[in-house]
Amino acid sequence: MVNVGILGATGMVGQRFIELLGDHPDFEITALTASMRSAGKKYEDAVTWYLDSKIPEVARDITVVDTDPGEVKDVDIVFSALPANIAAVVEPQFAEAGMIVASNASAMRMEPDVPLVIPEVNPEHLELVEMQQKNRGWDGFIVTNPNCSTIALTMTLKPLYDNYDLQRVYVSTMQAVSGAGYDGVPSMAIVDNLVPFIGEEEEKMETETLQLLGDLEEGNLNPASFGVSASCHRVAVLDGHTEAVFIQMEEDFQVEDVEETFREFKGLPQKLDLFSAPAAPIIVREEDNRPQPRMDRNAERGMAVSVGRVRKDEVFAKCLKYVLVGHNTIRGAAGASILNAELITEIM
Amino acid sequence: MVNVGILGATGMVGQRFIELLGDHPDFEITALTASMRSAGKKYEDAVTWYLDSKIPEVARDITVVDTDPGEVKDVDIVFSALPANIAAVVEPQFAEAGMIVASNASAMRMEPDVPLVIPEVNPEHLELVEMQQKNRGWDGFIVTNPNCSTIALTMTLKPLYDNYDLQRVYVSTMQAVSGAGYDGVPSMAIVDNLVPFIGEEEEKMETETLQLLGDLEEGNLNPASFGVSASCHRVAVLDGHTEAVFIQMEEDFQVEDVEETFREFKGLPQKLDLFSAPAAPIIVREEDNRPQPRMDRNAERGMAVSVGRVRKDEVFAKCLKYVLVGHNTIRGAAGASILNAELITEIM
Amino acid sequence: MVNVGILGATGMVGQRFIELLGDHPDFEITALTASMRSAGKKYEDAVTWYLDSKIPEVARDITVVDTDPGEVKDVDIVFSALPANIAAVVEPQFAEAGMIVASNASAMRMEPDVPLVIPEVNPEHLELVEMQQKNRGWDGFIVTNPNCSTIALTMTLKPLYDNYDLQRVYVSTMQAVSGAGYDGVPSMAIVDNLVPFIGEEEEKMETETLQLLGDLEEGNLNPASFGVSASCHRVAVLDGHTEAVFIQMEEDFQVEDVEETFREFKGLPQKLDLFSAPAAPIIVREEDNRPQPRMDRNAERGMAVSVGRVRKDEVFAKCLKYVLVGHNTIRGAAGASILNAELITEIM
Amino acid sequence: MVNVGILGATGMVGQRFIELLGDHPDFEITALTASMRSAGKKYEDAVTWYLDSKIPEVARDITVVDTDPGEVKDVDIVFSALPANIAAVVEPQFAEAGMIVASNASAMRMEPDVPLVIPEVNPEHLELVEMQQKNRGWDGFIVTNPNCSTIALTMTLKPLYDNYDLQRVYVSTMQAVSGAGYDGVPSMAIVDNLVPFIGEEEEKMETETLQLLGDLEEGNLNPASFGVSASCHRVAVLDGHTEAVFIQMEEDFQVEDVEETFREFKGLPQKLDLFSAPAAPIIVREEDNRPQPRMDRNAERGMAVSVGRVRKDEVFAKCLKYVLVGHNTIRGAAGASILNAELITEIM
Repeated sequence: MVNVGILGATGMVGQRFIELLGDHPDFEITALTASMRSAGKKYEDAVTWYLDSKIPEVARDITVVDTDPGEVKDVDIVFSALPANIAAVVEPQFAEAGMIVASNASAMRMEPDVPLVIPEVNPEHLELVEMQQKNRGWDGFIVTNPNCSTIALTMTLKPLYDNYDLQRVYVSTMQAVSGAGYDGVPSMAIVDNLVPFIGEEEEKMETETLQLLGDLEEGNLNPASFGVSASCHRVAVLDGHTEAVFIQMEEDFQVEDVEETFREFKGLPQKLDLFSAPAAPIIVREEDNRPQPRMDRNAERGMAVSVGRVRKDEVFAKCLKYVLVGHNTIRGAAGASILNAELITEIM
Repeated sequence: MVNVGILGATGMVGQRFIELLGDHPDFEITALTASMRSAGKKYEDAVTWYLDSKIPEVARDITVVDTDPGEVKDVDIVFSALPANIAAVVEPQFAEAGMIVASNASAMRMEPDVPLVIPEVNPEHLELVEMQQKNRGWDGFIVTNPNCSTIALTMTLKPLYDNYDLQRVYVSTMQAVSGAGYDGVPSMAIVDNLVPFIGEEEEKMETETLQLLGDLEEGNLNPASFGVSASCHRVAVLDGHTEAVFIQMEEDFQVEDVEETFREFKGLPQKLDLFSAPAAPIIVREEDNRPQPRMDRNAERGMAVSVGRVRKDEVFAKCLKYVLVGHNTIRGAAGASILNAELITEIM
Repeated sequence: MVNVGILGATGMVGQRFIELLGDHPDFEITALTASMRSAGKKYEDAVTWYLDSKIPEVARDITVVDTDPGEVKDVDIVFSALPANIAAVVEPQFAEAGMIVASNASAMRMEPDVPLVIPEVNPEHLELVEMQQKNRGWDGFIVTNPNCSTIALTMTLKPLYDNYDLQRVYVSTMQAVSGAGYDGVPSMAIVDNLVPFIGEEEEKMETETLQLLGDLEEGNLNPASFGVSASCHRVAVLDGHTEAVFIQMEEDFQVEDVEETFREFKGLPQKLDLFSAPAAPIIVREEDNRPQPRMDRNAERGMAVSVGRVRKDEVFAKCLKYVLVGHNTIRGAAGASILNAELITEIM
Repeated sequence: MVNVGILGATGMVGQRFIELLGDHPDFEITALTASMRSAGKKYEDAVTWYLDSKIPEVARDITVVDTDPGEVKDVDIVFSALPANIAAVVEPQFAEAGMIVASNASAMRMEPDVPLVIPEVNPEHLELVEMQQKNRGWDGFIVTNPNCSTIALTMTLKPLYDNYDLQRVYVSTMQAVSGAGYDGVPSMAIVDNLVPFIGEEEEKMETETLQLLGDLEEGNLNPASFGVSASCHRVAVLDGHTEAVFIQMEEDFQVEDVEETFREFKGLPQKLDLFSAPAAPIIVREEDNRPQPRMDRNAERGMAVSVGRVRKDEVFAKCLKYVLVGHNTIRGAAGASILNAELITEIM
């Protein structure tokens, strides 16, 4: 068993880490950190548990410590569910102290020597780790996963990008409130309403996607060169981001071929049979009104992306449209970091 | 006062007609029709009133009749809130009987001699009426308004189309449940969920928009030639459709100019100062999180479209993005037909 | 394995039966019935599956038959998820044909020779079966479970009734929309709203509760003699009924004792360790804001009732108050019938 | 015109005060206070306006000042929408400075010389003002209105109390999220959920109700002597509190008589024809599924309480049940204080 810690263990994503790691066959939770207000308390006393599962036994009695590498002993991997501003300061300290940091925070994603990885999409970017350790003189290192909306989108773009010439991608999201944290969206803002704005989300989708699909050449990342344009919106859904995708293709295509491309897609986690890997990363729904967040977010324990309404635009011959749903706090956050860690443990 | 009737007066849109016409200065409700189940009853006994206003006094005691021109006496204009399949049969009968039919139904929209009109966008298409009456030997005639999502979109496209070269429009909607009628969307389908499909809605948006912006040449309509691609979704909002719009422009543009173009836009209803015309058809919101359906649907008594988040895409220089909100059962349905009737009464 | 069938297998409660029986150790689904529209189709083609689990493998390929005992072969127990008016006609036919009918329908609940049973509350009422078979000349028999709201309430009243003198019970419910069936509550009725009426629900709570707690003497049921007064309301919750209970007690009491009484309560299903029996029928929550339907409805796979906010009224010394949550389509419907069948199989 | 100020003008209730006073015939808004963060800004720049109406013109340009009587000049009446802890300190300062404080805060409600008033219920309690001024040596004075849930309940209890002997009242509330302030209830807590707890709400309902219906004898208030027992719950409704009321009566009664008692009820505001007074304080709905918060909260511009489902309990002959809806931030907060001020202006 690998000892793991969770940084920021009392928040929404922190709780998902604990839920997912509670019965993990290879990782054992041995450290939990939170803000100073919680430090010193047993986890079950420090947390207001928001999930409808129970707090895993293994975590209940762990004494929460301050988010400081000096407080986290005998741990090999830390999962970071920290806010970006704190992550920017603290994650390097943990890497310097020799730990592997599998981070869901955005702080380090755009550092040129920090890999931003989805295991099914760009596992080869992990080779940046070597440069990172050399550059920074760290014994440990940081690996990040993308923003929740980006992960679901990019998982579906990967097989298309490998098989078609994409010209431009337009994506309109309908995102769940859990993405903003438990207190992030007041009910007054979302009952009988939606909010057509999520701070910095569109920028992340537009840059991270291209970076994930980019090529690494001698330590330099060349982003993919098609365009991505995003419009992000918050709707009255608890978990599960829905995205309407329009892709202007360079050439004509058949809808059946696209569906087949989605269905056949497998990545390294599937080949290596990693514990958290979904059997199929992409599930293609045939019904005309699916995927739906409440019905499809938990597919493959929340780790698969469901795609449906794959269609060719009636007006523009070369425009592909589809709708996707992915679980934002599992596949789009905690599960993404865990899958990164499983991959690292397996291949590095 | 012009005597008016409402066909399909007990449904969702029928009720909006009555609410809006209850205190109209020029139109007086004198006839209400519904299915045979309701015929013979006083309106207040026939209807389950779904709006949070009161039933207007003028309508309460009207005896509902069957939807048959023989039952509707001394009426000049009928407003149709009928289902498409019934409208296809009945609206021509009313026109033949000499009445003006201002219809919200989709049945006749694509007939080449039936004008599909938004008064701010293409009032000149009303000249088709002459051909319609001649072709069909009718004393009355039918005028239609577009689908709810199309109206809001096209009102914002009109000033852009007049001032810029549009290449392609991608639109992703987040539509209110009232658009499906009172019983249309079960709560089990929409609480903590959304439904990424609305039957025939995308097709309507993709064809009606181009027809509305098309040119009439010697009785032939040449649709506008840019592309429109729609993806339509139902969300947990009672009233007010929200649409995320991406426009691939032919040339570069300034966001400020686009906003100014929206703000300055006036149509014939504004020039003629029609009773139901909003002072400004398009309201530009400056806040980064507006428009929102609950906050903006009732702008200008539900007759204006609110636009916000006007921005230039960071990745594609020529891509314009914005979000709009329009009231689907007022500006997108009953109010649209009423404004058509006001325009007809004024200019024909 | 006992072969079982489900009557009304395509509806909301029918689906829950299939979900719960999909991996049952003692019952094997071998027959599914539905309306004639579905008869002849494979179940997976006949049903629009509303649950977020998958259709169990065992049910997918079963050919749906008409709800007629002649169509249901080699089955020992049928579970009835039929509407009351159909159940009234059909359930006796199945019993006459020699099958055990474990019914969730209300049709036969008030027949003097049909047991209305919650296994934790009044298993001894099953002795009515003998009279039923004799009276009616049936080889099979019918056993019913109460209305969803009644089950949750009565499970909490049982230990109180056994330990205290109850004078009057006032209960105000906040019920989930799934209780009305998939199409039962339009979203227009419940978004930003609630509906303070559920047809016949109050009457059922007020009579069934007393019957369940009543004594059987020589085949005659003497209902319990305290009063029950209910007010029933529908709120925007998918699953899980919440009930605010006020009990006017005959004598003073201690809150701690009441909580202890709840915690210690075990019934026959717990003693017999029936498969669907919750370890504890009543879970006592200590938090000041629990139970909540989304958080607590699935406790013990939906078979336990969660109780919280147990308190003594500050004004009336003898008034006990608490809030309970129970899963309406599991513990309150399909799970209730299944537990009845498990009990029957074990003891009769 | 009387010059009025609003203390705590940027919050939820503060905004309602401004909305309601925007076109008041007798009161003119001339001062607005808020926390120091807002002081010095124009109101329209200081506020995030949450209502779907526009900010009234009169308020837009007022410069917000600190909540300090020294900053509020030439004002006769201040309306307080302050949090209780601030109100406790600041309201006495404003009264001492000679102003009339019409407060919605709970801080001073239980002071023996501060009247807690609903104009339709206990206008005579205003005579405590004289004692208050004498006791405290103030030129101004404080008048409070009750908690939002209490107001709606007590308005319906008043005519019953005058005409029947009430023994015990049990009330279960389903309260709107706006009652907790804009940020008070996270969407994660209320989508597909409800929260069966509102801090101190039950205590307020149980004490304030009896105080409002109490008799003032020589400056001493004798609370009414029947019992009130409350259970309070938050549901996914934006505005409008719903309450299920059970009343154990001393004697038998007729439902029709109770309805008539509700309908005939008028208070002093109706007799004096105060500007904000509803024509009828209580509206009796006949439909079996009303009142509903979305449909009935705005009755009489939000100032009337709607009552429905008036019925006699089938089990207990002397138990009366009904459901009520009142607008929590209008009749239950800002409108209540304004009506108090109108009454004071008229009679004192």
